[in-house]
Amino acid sequence: MNGEIEHTLRGSWTPSGAASAPLSPAALRWLRHRIGLTETTTPAVPSSLLDVPGSSLADTPRAELEALLGERHVLVDAAARLGRAGGMSYSDLVRRRDGAELAVPDAVLLPSDPELVQGVLEICARHDIAVVPFGGGTSVVGGVDALRGGKNAVVALDLVRLDRLISLDPDSRIAVLQAGMRATEAESLLAAHGFTLGHFPQSFERATIGGFAATRSAGQASSGYGRFEDMVEGVRLATPAGEWKLGVAPASAAGPDLRQLAIGSEGILGVITEVAVRVRPAPRRSRYEAFVVDGWQAGTDAVRALAQERVLADVTRLSDPAETEVQLALSGQLKARALGNLLRAKGVRNPCLLVLGWDAGTRTELKQRRAAAVRALRDVRTVRLGRAAGESWKSHRFSGPRQRDALLDRGVCVETLETATSWSGLSELRSAVRTALVRNLQTGSKPPIVMCHVSHAYETGASLYFTVLAPRDSEHALAQWQRAKEAACDAIAGRGTISHHHAVGVDHRPWLGAEIGDIGTAVLTAAKRAVDPTGILNPGKLLRD
Amino acid sequence: MNGEIEHTLRGSWTPSGAASAPLSPAALRWLRHRIGLTETTTPAVPSSLLDVPGSSLADTPRAELEALLGERHVLVDAAARLGRAGGMSYSDLVRRRDGAELAVPDAVLLPSDPELVQGVLEICARHDIAVVPFGGGTSVVGGVDALRGGKNAVVALDLVRLDRLISLDPDSRIAVLQAGMRATEAESLLAAHGFTLGHFPQSFERATIGGFAATRSAGQASSGYGRFEDMVEGVRLATPAGEWKLGVAPASAAGPDLRQLAIGSEGILGVITEVAVRVRPAPRRSRYEAFVVDGWQAGTDAVRALAQERVLADVTRLSDPAETEVQLALSGQLKARALGNLLRAKGVRNPCLLVLGWDAGTRTELKQRRAAAVRALRDVRTVRLGRAAGESWKSHRFSGPRQRDALLDRGVCVETLETATSWSGLSELRSAVRTALVRNLQTGSKPPIVMCHVSHAYETGASLYFTVLAPRDSEHALAQWQRAKEAACDAIAGRGTISHHHAVGVDHRPWLGAEIGDIGTAVLTAAKRAVDPTGILNPGKLLRD
Repeated sequence: MNGEIEHTLRGSWTPSGAASAPLSPAALRWLRHRIGLTETTTPAVPSSLLDVPGSSLADTPRAELEALLGERHVLVDAAARLGRAGGMSYSDLVRRRDGAELAVPDAVLLPSDPELVQGVLEICARHDIAVVPFGGGTSVVGGVDALRGGKNAVVALDLVRLDRLISLDPDSRIAVLQAGMRATEAESLLAAHGFTLGHFPQSFERATIGGFAATRSAGQASSGYGRFEDMVEGVRLATPAGEWKLGVAPASAAGPDLRQLAIGSEGILGVITEVAVRVRPAPRRSRYEAFVVDGWQAGTDAVRALAQERVLADVTRLSDPAETEVQLALSGQLKARALGNLLRAKGVRNPCLLVLGWDAGTRTELKQRRAAAVRALRDVRTVRLGRAAGESWKSHRFSGPRQRDALLDRGVCVETLETATSWSGLSELRSAVRTALVRNLQTGSKPPIVMCHVSHAYETGASLYFTVLAPRDSEHALAQWQRAKEAACDAIAGRGTISHHHAVGVDHRPWLGAEIGDIGTAVLTAAKRAVDPTGILNPGKLLRD
Repeated sequence: MNGEIEHTLRGSWTPSGAASAPLSPAALRWLRHRIGLTETTTPAVPSSLLDVPGSSLADTPRAELEALLGERHVLVDAAARLGRAGGMSYSDLVRRRDGAELAVPDAVLLPSDPELVQGVLEICARHDIAVVPFGGGTSVVGGVDALRGGKNAVVALDLVRLDRLISLDPDSRIAVLQAGMRATEAESLLAAHGFTLGHFPQSFERATIGGFAATRSAGQASSGYGRFEDMVEGVRLATPAGEWKLGVAPASAAGPDLRQLAIGSEGILGVITEVAVRVRPAPRRSRYEAFVVDGWQAGTDAVRALAQERVLADVTRLSDPAETEVQLALSGQLKARALGNLLRAKGVRNPCLLVLGWDAGTRTELKQRRAAAVRALRDVRTVRLGRAAGESWKSHRFSGPRQRDALLDRGVCVETLETATSWSGLSELRSAVRTALVRNLQTGSKPPIVMCHVSHAYETGASLYFTVLAPRDSEHALAQWQRAKEAACDAIAGRGTISHHHAVGVDHRPWLGAEIGDIGTAVLTAAKRAVDPTGILNPGKLLRD
């Protein structure tokens, strides 16, 4: 397969493609019992049968773009455009199943270096064409929706060909990566030099470096390696006003940290083309293990102790009783029934699974970090489940997204959302969001399953990540989730952040203003106008147009 | 002494006041030998003899301000205004000695809460009066210079009465402090609850919480406690466009991190009135000790190993051979001669002092952290000087600024500057700045002393802090330093950041544009215009007006 075709297919629309995984018979049985599944499957309409509108890209800009990038790198065929029609949220998946309400870009552009990205922006600014930067396409908040925003056309600027390791400074442990490089590719290129980035969000298998930066991504091992913004040393952006390079030192007092303005700008302040990241030696030892704690309060006390004594494991993840029940039920390896008996015998009434995972350079380091964590847990009663359960979690860490198509096929509404707040506000926030979701997802007699976990802990607070499983309202699937999501966001507003690591995109936009204030909105709007005076960059994301 | 008089005096002009300390006879002898001191002292002109221009504050705004704040909190007397005429840089001190070129504010305003600060901004915006936020007055970059910027008048907005602990959440370890609270006061208020902020810059004895936030301050223990921006959970600002509150969670992906735009904004984007900070339990154990390493390269290798193995001591400080020589010479407690003999006997040719200091909750924690650090230093040959030398450094940690008046009295040019870069660029940066300073400070036959230390280390790089001691060119004292400073900044540009923790102010403004790019300047300018449309906030700082 030649490079170009591969590029075209990589981001393409594969709702039941290689990345999806079936549900086990046991999982199906359990789901049928708990939320009641439809017996008949509800598969997606094949993409070839969908009615894709023709491209609105006019001949002149198209010719200019083709002259700049080469004809093969300006794609207007339906498959390529469908492949960049939105991200991977539940709503995206539902919309794609029947092709309804899909915003399809008028063309897909495939520049191969930062200068060409700059050139694309100049052409698009001149012809008033909206530009949606596109990386792995894993946004779950509408961040890559091909919205036209009143412009003449909208193009997806797919950065897949910006996939090079530009430099690696082993003494300073800084790697400069192009923005379109996939996380998997970054890890394998760095591994060849003995390094790792250590950034493993659930989107790891598809997401790109530029996407991580644009969305302030956090990974499953962020307790150890830091959030993506903590890793960024420098960033290079293409903007309609010109190139912008930031970051000359690990820390600076040379005015506000503008890197932190570029990071999380979701394509509205520029197209990130390169990111200088801090890397670490690839671990030579690792240990993942699982514990059970009795009750949510005891669990959060445990994670808080680890965070505040600054001995967090690299992966630190606490599931609430609902999520623990599902994990035990769906995990063949955990031998759910035997485990349930064991926990009851030990007097554990509300089991909460706590997974801790350490990466280390040496056995000594691993041993000491683990000992320090165990010491910090001295006041919390834990039942050790051992390494097999921890390793089992690790081996399934990226599998969530792969099972969504199988769940959708069975008529399940499956989606996640997340937030963060201070330790003292965490329980109230969890209750408020749970209540909002349970109330608004109910369709039949069986209540929806609303699970929650803490996966990112800080000295002052933590994130909450909710996963819902509910019978889909087959007539009003989008409205069912939209109602629940709005109620959850209303519950979050005033209690926590509207997003801890999924970003704002389209979906969280209505709540951003309350979080950053009118002044914050005015400042962001002014910054956008300075770099993008005609507003071609990713319309409708983060800010109202 | 009543509150108001105390407020007036606290920030007042005391070049030889309580905070200054004399030089020891040994230090004087050594300095005479090394750089040649003038035998006659050159004391400051008493402030009472200085010619202070009258206040240009018109009657109407003055009456409005008095109505808002109370007459006692709008000061127009010469002493109060002189007390806020600039900061604490060498140039500030030299200018104050003869009263030449002093920019004196037309009034000093003393609001007592955030709402009154907001009210002051409304009045000043209406009457087109420039507002210079004033905390401890310790800026060494001209950050509090009372520049009028073409406005009708300029007032110093002294935040000293915003000195309250608003709230303390012990579970989340978050304290909300008003911006005018001094660091010393914050520490004692927090200590009453068993907590510490852990922020100890050399300005600790005078500086305020708001100043730390406005300048992206870093303290001597920042390797352990983090830079000030790492501690900030939230910030509240008064701006001409209205109040601005930021920060609802420890981390967020709700767009760019606007807290990091407010932090380091040096009063041009608003007046910081409250800061929510992360606190930690006050340490119950501490251990400071000193080592000697042979040569700068071995020293930076040692600090790099500590940083990259993530076992930095809370205080980690490496002096180059020149600074080590001075520290040994000036420290009676280190018994310089005996130590010199010892080091020679051990074959150490270029001694570099390495001070490591740990704060911990328990003896076990301290022991383990120290053991991990010693392990990380396994490949570096160190001579242990022991705890007395480390504790000696600790006991003198804030004394530098106090001795400047005594040095100025003896005709010495004494100043500091700082930068940061990646590990691989550190040696070249140090050489380039050293060369620039040595070349441009020379006045007579004796070469100036240019010392350097690393006091802040990161996985990817470190800061460099330079201190100069040179015979003052008594005719052209300001020009002598200005020339050296410009040459040093030129050497820094392109190699590192123009400031790692002193901020930009007036002095670094010419180099900021190159560091953040034209786009960065345009973005900051646009943000400023959004919050301060008429440009009354701290004119001439960070950006050109």
